[in-house]
Amino acid sequence: MCELLGMNCNVPTDIVFSFSGFSKRASEHADGFGIAFFENRGVRCFVDAQAADQSPVADLIRQYPIRSTHVIAHIRKATVGHVALENCHPFTRELWGRYWVFAHNGDLKGYDPLLHAAFRPVGDTDSERAFCWLLQEMAKSHASVPTPEELTRTLRELVPQVARFGTFNFIMSNGQALWAHCSTKLHHLVRQHPFAQARLQDDDVTVDFAQVTGPQDRVALVATQPLTDNEDWQAFKPGELLAFVDGVSLD
Amino acid sequence: MCELLGMNCNVPTDIVFSFSGFSKRASEHADGFGIAFFENRGVRCFVDAQAADQSPVADLIRQYPIRSTHVIAHIRKATVGHVALENCHPFTRELWGRYWVFAHNGDLKGYDPLLHAAFRPVGDTDSERAFCWLLQEMAKSHASVPTPEELTRTLRELVPQVARFGTFNFIMSNGQALWAHCSTKLHHLVRQHPFAQARLQDDDVTVDFAQVTGPQDRVALVATQPLTDNEDWQAFKPGELLAFVDGVSLD
Repeated sequence: MCELLGMNCNVPTDIVFSFSGFSKRASEHADGFGIAFFENRGVRCFVDAQAADQSPVADLIRQYPIRSTHVIAHIRKATVGHVALENCHPFTRELWGRYWVFAHNGDLKGYDPLLHAAFRPVGDTDSERAFCWLLQEMAKSHASVPTPEELTRTLRELVPQVARFGTFNFIMSNGQALWAHCSTKLHHLVRQHPFAQARLQDDDVTVDFAQVTGPQDRVALVATQPLTDNEDWQAFKPGELLAFVDGVSLD
Repeated sequence: MCELLGMNCNVPTDIVFSFSGFSKRASEHADGFGIAFFENRGVRCFVDAQAADQSPVADLIRQYPIRSTHVIAHIRKATVGHVALENCHPFTRELWGRYWVFAHNGDLKGYDPLLHAAFRPVGDTDSERAFCWLLQEMAKSHASVPTPEELTRTLRELVPQVARFGTFNFIMSNGQALWAHCSTKLHHLVRQHPFAQARLQDDDVTVDFAQVTGPQDRVALVATQPLTDNEDWQAFKPGELLAFVDGVSLD
């Protein structure tokens, strides 16, 4: 499975993680995983420092089809930070009365930003430092929750200041929009009615498009690697940041 | 089951929620539940707006013995705030690079504090407002994580300013200590070696003391109502705030 996966839809959609491929890749991604689902303003975040094939939390997620408009998932191979619950993505913080969820793929070398405000890392990963710095700077730029368009402009100014330290592929959401940035590898796909296939499926993840049948329904997926080989996945350009709202890119 | 339950131990201890009593009380506490487990600096929080007898998340917790030194659980009967995921206790925020978890039992009437700093409620409960205000004022009182003793003194100044608005029984933890405040009803018990009973058990919760066998091992439990009828549960006095560290009260 991809290291990063994001889903943004205009109607709550089931996403089921079968984890059948997790055990195959256990040696590669054995250092934890996490999945966050927004339900309106609330968020449900499952993280585990155990590999997915040994985790009761993974069992739950495999059995529990959660309907959500915004999903962020991450499989962790530890590169910076020791293996511990507090280092598992996605990370969650509150800003402007909204929860923000963030997952990162890549390494930031020598990244030690000045964190002088309200957001401090709990663990010791470069990823959580970057998330705290983004929130700190976002809080300076807006007095309350900006529109997705406004925040996209802000992020396009902020993100390059982090990305120059290394590889900064990330997905972030506040339950209103889903932002994705590519340093090296990230793909996206928008599926709309009529859906050629009833289900999108690989070894690890199933999105039940049978729930999405109206002519207005749309699902945007963002993943490190394409999840299917017969659809028109678009590669992000290096340095590209996109925002998805209601299952479609704002650009 | 009690509406609030807290556990603080000096060694990680299994706590298992059988939920057998939840369904009996479904009409009374049908508006969600939540449980947070600290694992060192990390925290694992399970919340659900569904009643526990209908929730796959409850199934997970029933089957999954999580070893933790600090646990906070809450069963919700909605009084203020609509039934939604974002209104489920416990609430979590980060301050000073530590996660803080908070659960409240009671009502605060007309409580609308000035929240001018970094902590804003996501939902619409009086409980989350009180938690945000406490964190805001704690952040003004200390530049970094205070000792449990220092924070206890601060909380004893702050908490009465909230409690005068109504009923403010709460449990809070940052994974280093567990604080509990009583307005109307809260009990505590410290169990130490040698344990007279192998297991503490009522309809809803089992703490496996078989894991806790050394002469130094201690478990403090805080609950709205005593969980057993043959042990020396102490009632909190109205207005009393206690801090528990390593399974024992600081006072």
